[in-house]
Amino acid sequence: MPKALQPHPDRALPAGEAREVARRIHASTQDLPLLCFHGHVDVGLFATDEAFGNPADLLVVPDHYVTRMLVSQGVAPDRLGLPRRDGVRTAEPRDIWREFCSRWQLFLGTPSRYWLEHEFSEVLGLDVAPSAETADQLYDEISARLAEPEFRPRALLDRFKIEVISTTDAATDDLAYHAKLAADLPGRVIPTFRPDALVHLDRPGWSDLAEQLGERADTDTSTYQGYLEALRRRREAFRAAGALATDHGHLSAAASPLEDAAATRIYDSARKGEVSADDAAAFAGHMLFQMAAMSAEDGLVMQLHPGVLRDHHPDIHATYGPDQGHDIPVATEFTRSLRPVLEKFGHAEGFRMVLFTVDETTYSRELAPIAGVYPTVRLGAPWWFLDSPDGMRRFRELVTETAGFYNTSGFVDDTRAFLSIPARHDLARRIDAGYLAKLVVEHRLEEDDAFQVAQDLAYNLARTTYIR
Amino acid sequence: MPKALQPHPDRALPAGEAREVARRIHASTQDLPLLCFHGHVDVGLFATDEAFGNPADLLVVPDHYVTRMLVSQGVAPDRLGLPRRDGVRTAEPRDIWREFCSRWQLFLGTPSRYWLEHEFSEVLGLDVAPSAETADQLYDEISARLAEPEFRPRALLDRFKIEVISTTDAATDDLAYHAKLAADLPGRVIPTFRPDALVHLDRPGWSDLAEQLGERADTDTSTYQGYLEALRRRREAFRAAGALATDHGHLSAAASPLEDAAATRIYDSARKGEVSADDAAAFAGHMLFQMAAMSAEDGLVMQLHPGVLRDHHPDIHATYGPDQGHDIPVATEFTRSLRPVLEKFGHAEGFRMVLFTVDETTYSRELAPIAGVYPTVRLGAPWWFLDSPDGMRRFRELVTETAGFYNTSGFVDDTRAFLSIPARHDLARRIDAGYLAKLVVEHRLEEDDAFQVAQDLAYNLARTTYIR
Amino acid sequence: MPKALQPHPDRALPAGEAREVARRIHASTQDLPLLCFHGHVDVGLFATDEAFGNPADLLVVPDHYVTRMLVSQGVAPDRLGLPRRDGVRTAEPRDIWREFCSRWQLFLGTPSRYWLEHEFSEVLGLDVAPSAETADQLYDEISARLAEPEFRPRALLDRFKIEVISTTDAATDDLAYHAKLAADLPGRVIPTFRPDALVHLDRPGWSDLAEQLGERADTDTSTYQGYLEALRRRREAFRAAGALATDHGHLSAAASPLEDAAATRIYDSARKGEVSADDAAAFAGHMLFQMAAMSAEDGLVMQLHPGVLRDHHPDIHATYGPDQGHDIPVATEFTRSLRPVLEKFGHAEGFRMVLFTVDETTYSRELAPIAGVYPTVRLGAPWWFLDSPDGMRRFRELVTETAGFYNTSGFVDDTRAFLSIPARHDLARRIDAGYLAKLVVEHRLEEDDAFQVAQDLAYNLARTTYIR
Repeated sequence: MPKALQPHPDRALPAGEAREVARRIHASTQDLPLLCFHGHVDVGLFATDEAFGNPADLLVVPDHYVTRMLVSQGVAPDRLGLPRRDGVRTAEPRDIWREFCSRWQLFLGTPSRYWLEHEFSEVLGLDVAPSAETADQLYDEISARLAEPEFRPRALLDRFKIEVISTTDAATDDLAYHAKLAADLPGRVIPTFRPDALVHLDRPGWSDLAEQLGERADTDTSTYQGYLEALRRRREAFRAAGALATDHGHLSAAASPLEDAAATRIYDSARKGEVSADDAAAFAGHMLFQMAAMSAEDGLVMQLHPGVLRDHHPDIHATYGPDQGHDIPVATEFTRSLRPVLEKFGHAEGFRMVLFTVDETTYSRELAPIAGVYPTVRLGAPWWFLDSPDGMRRFRELVTETAGFYNTSGFVDDTRAFLSIPARHDLARRIDAGYLAKLVVEHRLEEDDAFQVAQDLAYNLARTTYIR
Repeated sequence: MPKALQPHPDRALPAGEAREVARRIHASTQDLPLLCFHGHVDVGLFATDEAFGNPADLLVVPDHYVTRMLVSQGVAPDRLGLPRRDGVRTAEPRDIWREFCSRWQLFLGTPSRYWLEHEFSEVLGLDVAPSAETADQLYDEISARLAEPEFRPRALLDRFKIEVISTTDAATDDLAYHAKLAADLPGRVIPTFRPDALVHLDRPGWSDLAEQLGERADTDTSTYQGYLEALRRRREAFRAAGALATDHGHLSAAASPLEDAAATRIYDSARKGEVSADDAAAFAGHMLFQMAAMSAEDGLVMQLHPGVLRDHHPDIHATYGPDQGHDIPVATEFTRSLRPVLEKFGHAEGFRMVLFTVDETTYSRELAPIAGVYPTVRLGAPWWFLDSPDGMRRFRELVTETAGFYNTSGFVDDTRAFLSIPARHDLARRIDAGYLAKLVVEHRLEEDDAFQVAQDLAYNLARTTYIR
Repeated sequence: MPKALQPHPDRALPAGEAREVARRIHASTQDLPLLCFHGHVDVGLFATDEAFGNPADLLVVPDHYVTRMLVSQGVAPDRLGLPRRDGVRTAEPRDIWREFCSRWQLFLGTPSRYWLEHEFSEVLGLDVAPSAETADQLYDEISARLAEPEFRPRALLDRFKIEVISTTDAATDDLAYHAKLAADLPGRVIPTFRPDALVHLDRPGWSDLAEQLGERADTDTSTYQGYLEALRRRREAFRAAGALATDHGHLSAAASPLEDAAATRIYDSARKGEVSADDAAAFAGHMLFQMAAMSAEDGLVMQLHPGVLRDHHPDIHATYGPDQGHDIPVATEFTRSLRPVLEKFGHAEGFRMVLFTVDETTYSRELAPIAGVYPTVRLGAPWWFLDSPDGMRRFRELVTETAGFYNTSGFVDDTRAFLSIPARHDLARRIDAGYLAKLVVEHRLEEDDAFQVAQDLAYNLARTTYIR
């Protein structure tokens, strides 16, 4: 007998006295539309609206949460079909799917399992759990579903009640898909400006990108001033295409401006391919400050998520490229690092910064105290490894007492996995409902206030954080 | 209908099975007197015993927990009447009060809300919650209360059952108010010796303070040895005035002694106004060691609370001065930093050190292991941003298993807000009751032991930590 | 009336709805045999199988958890009979025992109290709690028990259902006891290879140890290459004697290889007694890498537990030697420190590394992300100060969501206190049962899965981590 797949209606709600309160609170938010202002779904999905591929290429291969767990238990990346830079792919989708299904128990206790159960059950209408035995049956059932018109990306956008979703787009992107989407689905799928590749001068290929940036912006990027101007113009183009925000992933939160002469010198050395690692790091921090300055001018919300050492394993990176699960967090510092930005823009009218972290030690020590006094700062939802039931609970417990609820951004997902979006929002709403219910039953919050806060966390705060 | 203000009798107690046990434990401690050995209330309050001013100047303007939250949501400091260095004040008390009341929801989930509800209800006898609608009514009601004789500071001292309260006084203070209080209320309001301003050689105005110190101590402070002698004499004067402790707020816990020659050289350079930032930091660490040495001699308990980067925003500091909510914690290190002090005095008969932190990562990693072996060290109550329901619970959970209960100092508040003192002690007693009750219902502690520990945490340990 | 000693059958299980589930889960694991692959019990105990000494020398003197707590409350080390380097001992066992019993309340809320209650009640069959009044009676009762044949070490090995126990042995050990045990109790008591003393070149006595190593390995250790060869041979001898693992305690997790020439230069300088502290630290990190390389060859599991500053108090160390409770953790970094090892061996077939920490901040930030992708890495059980009810609960809460259950090593104790082994495993099984039960009642895990995971955490994972 295969095991049934039946997500429980009370899943991720607290047990005991708080459950009944949590149920009521969750019921009051579960039908609110979804705001996805920090997404990473590929824009092409919505622009072309083609049917999704097979189950493996939809649900396993591109989801680094899933592949990293399988790799950690000895499944070779090639057997999971991780896209190789040399283009070779030997694994068949059905075999990949079997690898995954037969190791379903590895995901016990993880948010991936939680999201996938939700996707399987509520989105795809499956009723048996993955296992070696059920793999083929599930593969076929999912394949059949994906061929139906109501499983096309735009149809799901409606079904998921996604009010707005942002994609993440390189500063050099031509935004052609977004132009099409602005016509087809006005205001619904919007770009986010991500200049990371352009501000890290020592990454291979930087020169070519700077060149591209110049072409795209119709500006000469052979000088530092031209480069700044080109970035400014691209931000403007993104804004015109509907963007509300920028997105910055740096190794540290360091954001100290350089003197113009120093920035120019480093930029010039990078043009000659001679930039040192220290200079490149200083320039990245300088550009974080410059991006803040531009945000203060043009009003794009600045999203910062520092503290991940990307591509920890060089061979994996060489063979499979970035984002293959080998990104490991490091301790992160905000108080001193962001001080130059906060000195200058922390109280500035037009500025808005949303801070994310994967270093929980900064929640109560740095982030809540910063957001709890600087009017321009909001704390983003628990990010990446922390976008999980206990991770989200700890975020509230560590942040609320100093920053309150209203200095947080409301829930925004952070995913490439389109089908997981409803599960992620629903889980966040459940965890917040549980946290609020606990405060209610401990008589630290009155129930009517809890309902208001729940609505704000699930919807209103994301809206007011990003749309200004 | 304005919302009623009715703090629940079970507030901040755990739900479920543990509640009944927690109630009993809390009931056993709730009438114990209060010991306030780490206070920051202005001594003038008790010396002059004048009536408090208006509600805004009592409850909003001087409470940086309250003003920082309002500022974080866009209320300009001037609209809150934050005292400017140029003396200009435009906001009327009633308007400040309205700003506060109309944003009461910002405080949901914070300890400020918890304390204020207690103050409004139990101390001031109000029965409606703050809101835009009730602001004026509350303003008038509170004003009327404050004019009554039973709301004078000394009357409240009795009503609050405050057995001893310490104030915090600059090393250069003349202690005149304390002389008066020693006569009027012997042993009840005592000074604490705070030399911070004198050991940070690079702060503006240091020279003048060193001069004042010399005059006050009748000692020539033009030399380093004279300066040490003057500090020694002032400590003696504080002890004579009833002081039990010293209080030290440094950016780090570094406490490495310098050679005499090096200390002299740095001191001399500071006298000429030429001290470097590095030298000043080294001297501050050196003086922490010297203060420990003097404590080992004179028996004053040494309280250390490091790890806050003060005045994070220079413009706010320039306009409004210190302590305006723009103080942000940084990661703190104790194991290596305090080693010189602990090598020398960690097992010394007369020495006693109480350690505070706003970096929770040090609880289980450094502080509990240190206090769990060095007989001279006690861990102070959760401090500042951590003086909160979940903050206090985490403290117990992270500290007890390594340091036990008896290496902690018992609850001491840390507040300038006199009216909040009963609320803070009561909240701590509730959280400790809840923590103990949880251990009881999980059969990790027997109930009779829990009652004894609760008494010790609420009263006995503070007494034995400070009175020796 | 002396207080009764009655460990509650539900001790350390959660209250409320989860209790019943936790009881069932715990019942399903409580009779499983014990695997003790990370032990520190003295091998001589099992080799000679002599009766244990008096209660003080069995339960107080050698247990640094116990003595550090007593010292922290002012009991001088000499009154506890801590073994002095000068051989002087003045305290009588019975007096030591009285010191301990009369301060039993200090241990409230600590795992030491929990383990000791279990030992007193379940192992020694006592029924009154320690106190000043009961000290003598308990001393006599325990002494009588220890004289009985069923309290000999080997008899207890059976009674405790210890399937395999490893001891920790210096690389220079002659393994004679282990040879005897391999004959008497094949595969049941095995050695673990601990080379720490040999890789820290600046510790007093290093030269003599290197000399001994050479003799033991019949290799000339006057050169760096000979030293490496000697270590390789000793590893082989340990493997032949049944060893499954190596054990490494370093101040940091730094594991960067040096060039051969640099390693040779530093080694040679150490031979002359002229090594610098920086060079010694670099060499220690280099040797961690070399040990990983050898593990990848010979298959010994590499256990790393960094981050403790040993012998924090020099006078205590000078008088009483190491391991006397004055070891204090420091912040630890894994992501960058282990990168060289993981680059080279993180995906290597024969390699297996088990990581321990006393810095909880690394659980969700570094350790779970590392173990959640590298197939060679497992996370060890909560270690030392964290081997406690709340410590173990936090470990699961902080690790599981990213690394799952199957990238953890299962429970292994880490103790010198032989009698505490059943208590420690039982406590871990209770805490895991409670954690799993909480997931079950929050509908985040199905109950049948919880039973399987509980078996794996209590037994199977330790087996598959170490026996390969």
